[in-house]
Amino acid sequence: MTESLPLVRGFRFAALACGIKKKAGALDVGLIVADEPVPTAVVLTKNVVRAAPCDLTEERTKDGRLQAVLVNAGCANASTGKPGMAAARASTKAVASALGIDESRVAPSSTGVIGVVLPAEKIVARAGDLVADLAEDGATRFSQAIMTTDRWPKTASRTVRVGKEDVVILGIAKGAGMIHPNMATTLGYVVTDAKASSAFLRRALRDAVDQTFNRISVDGDTSTNDTIVLMASGEVSGTSLTGRDAASERFVEALTEVLGELGRSIVKDGEGAEHVVRFEVVGATSDAVAVTVARTIATSPLVKTALHGCDPNWGRIMAAAGRSGVRFDPALAEVRIGDVVVYAKGVPVGDATTEKRASEVMSRAEYTITVRLGRGRGRAHYDTCDFGHEYVRINADYRS
Amino acid sequence: MTESLPLVRGFRFAALACGIKKKAGALDVGLIVADEPVPTAVVLTKNVVRAAPCDLTEERTKDGRLQAVLVNAGCANASTGKPGMAAARASTKAVASALGIDESRVAPSSTGVIGVVLPAEKIVARAGDLVADLAEDGATRFSQAIMTTDRWPKTASRTVRVGKEDVVILGIAKGAGMIHPNMATTLGYVVTDAKASSAFLRRALRDAVDQTFNRISVDGDTSTNDTIVLMASGEVSGTSLTGRDAASERFVEALTEVLGELGRSIVKDGEGAEHVVRFEVVGATSDAVAVTVARTIATSPLVKTALHGCDPNWGRIMAAAGRSGVRFDPALAEVRIGDVVVYAKGVPVGDATTEKRASEVMSRAEYTITVRLGRGRGRAHYDTCDFGHEYVRINADYRS
Repeated sequence: MTESLPLVRGFRFAALACGIKKKAGALDVGLIVADEPVPTAVVLTKNVVRAAPCDLTEERTKDGRLQAVLVNAGCANASTGKPGMAAARASTKAVASALGIDESRVAPSSTGVIGVVLPAEKIVARAGDLVADLAEDGATRFSQAIMTTDRWPKTASRTVRVGKEDVVILGIAKGAGMIHPNMATTLGYVVTDAKASSAFLRRALRDAVDQTFNRISVDGDTSTNDTIVLMASGEVSGTSLTGRDAASERFVEALTEVLGELGRSIVKDGEGAEHVVRFEVVGATSDAVAVTVARTIATSPLVKTALHGCDPNWGRIMAAAGRSGVRFDPALAEVRIGDVVVYAKGVPVGDATTEKRASEVMSRAEYTITVRLGRGRGRAHYDTCDFGHEYVRINADYRS
Repeated sequence: MTESLPLVRGFRFAALACGIKKKAGALDVGLIVADEPVPTAVVLTKNVVRAAPCDLTEERTKDGRLQAVLVNAGCANASTGKPGMAAARASTKAVASALGIDESRVAPSSTGVIGVVLPAEKIVARAGDLVADLAEDGATRFSQAIMTTDRWPKTASRTVRVGKEDVVILGIAKGAGMIHPNMATTLGYVVTDAKASSAFLRRALRDAVDQTFNRISVDGDTSTNDTIVLMASGEVSGTSLTGRDAASERFVEALTEVLGELGRSIVKDGEGAEHVVRFEVVGATSDAVAVTVARTIATSPLVKTALHGCDPNWGRIMAAAGRSGVRFDPALAEVRIGDVVVYAKGVPVGDATTEKRASEVMSRAEYTITVRLGRGRGRAHYDTCDFGHEYVRINADYRS
């Protein structure tokens, strides 16, 4: 994960230790700056209880252009009312001023403890140092600065051919799963040197997120601060992506791969997770129906504890599917663990050997469980992790 | 819990050890018999993957009359296809025959391991002994026979004045929470000597269940076998309950109390539960909205682990409320743990002492957390338990 990251023309990155995290000297403020205001798309948490930086980010990306993103870890600045909003404004204003740009072009993100106002003065005091740290090859340090209790930084990149040039898509995220009490939040930043309108970026990001970040679950909880930003510098010469050509398709595909890789890395880093499991639901009447079933299975505590115990417990999987609100005929259903069919036509199949083989599949770090509902063509996947003692230890025994 | 239960005129109970549970000599088959076919209401699991006994119970209660209920523990007879249905028919037929009544008047229930066909022959062979065991004071033994890994039998009763007589409502249930791998299921049986139409009973049961069994959660999972039966012998002289008088109201109230007591006993017996917590959501735009918010909070793993750690983590409670799909203004919201307000008007309130007092409330075996959403008049409650290491131990470490 510490291999050098590709440069993305038109972007620079910075990271600094500003004393917001408790651990002295830990990087806790990151900055991404484009050479000028560039087309930008944003996806924000749907949680009604939304943090101040998300509100400000929405306000400042309404016209689909942004020049900088300022991220801090160690304090979520959520449920902090007017003082929280004032702190978000103050910190972005100081950085904008050090950059010599308009503050409305800087979007803030925060992650960390809920209910504590961002100590903006710590960022204001170091705004000049932060800007001085900006470098084209600063993405690795940035990826470290936005971590809370992540065990590793999360980065992914792809190269896509557009016209006669290669464009780079670089994604950086932090993990999720409320690994730490009150330290929730998925943050993801994707920068590219592709040329594209913000309308295209919006569609591309929405489609890619729907297939990736909206299909992962550590504990079914949605943070107050979730934010994903996609910025395109357009530094490549030539073709602009419009969504109506093969290059656009390749771009969306690569973007989906980048976000998918980041998403799986987040699940892998889920609290105490030992297994990353993909639930693949097929044979549904529609893709939307398949998503509902997959999500219900992937978030069931009973299913997730069975994953932890390497227990091929198709009964819990079918019971979860059955309560998802989707109608289907169990007599047509099938459950396959890896390539081992354990349930078909409404009844369990196989013998003790079958169960042993299924349990062996489940001892792997990553595997897929396929649930067939019937004869439809709808399908969807959902990535989840197992649910073990570490989850309880981290979330209950540790007091915030 | 072993105090003697009230007799209910018109009903007899039996219990027998038939060798369905693994433990030799354990009571595992129970029988309730009315003197004649009586008005009956039933609520069955909404899970699409539904066990054979539930299908047969639905078929046999279509006309709102039933004379007997045959219950076994140790085998859920779920996901067992046609052989499972044949086993349910065979066992009820044998008991009906020993009783000298029509088999269509006997409804079966099963709880225990999923995916194993009920060994009907074990019940068929002992049908005569089971009927010979019937006694007016047999309810205590019946309550023991239907237990799986329940730590105690669950019973509750109330007396209601109807006209010039007292009628008795006696409820018996088994617990839930998938305490044991593959041993899910809430089963509840309520008998009364009140005189009532099956139409009234249906409404009464639906209303009471909606306030009680539909408002409890151990792990958010719905069993394939959930069944609640209400039978009224009408042995009292005089007034029949119609739903349009004060006595009917008192009856529904008492029925709700009986089911409420059983429900809370089930939550208390949830896997490894140390705290029973009522989430009371008030100030919603409607009762239905309040239920949605209360359910989302009460089933959140992050909230439930915080309950386990006695952590007054209002951030997780508000984050769960915020993702429930219900719109509300956080600036009007309030969270109260017992009588300690920890969050108001969108921000945390109080100091270290406040948090300490809240944590003290949370160390109690039972307490209430009140969440105010805004200025509406809708309200609802949801009972849940904490989520600790025992849950993981029972559900993951133990292999089925």
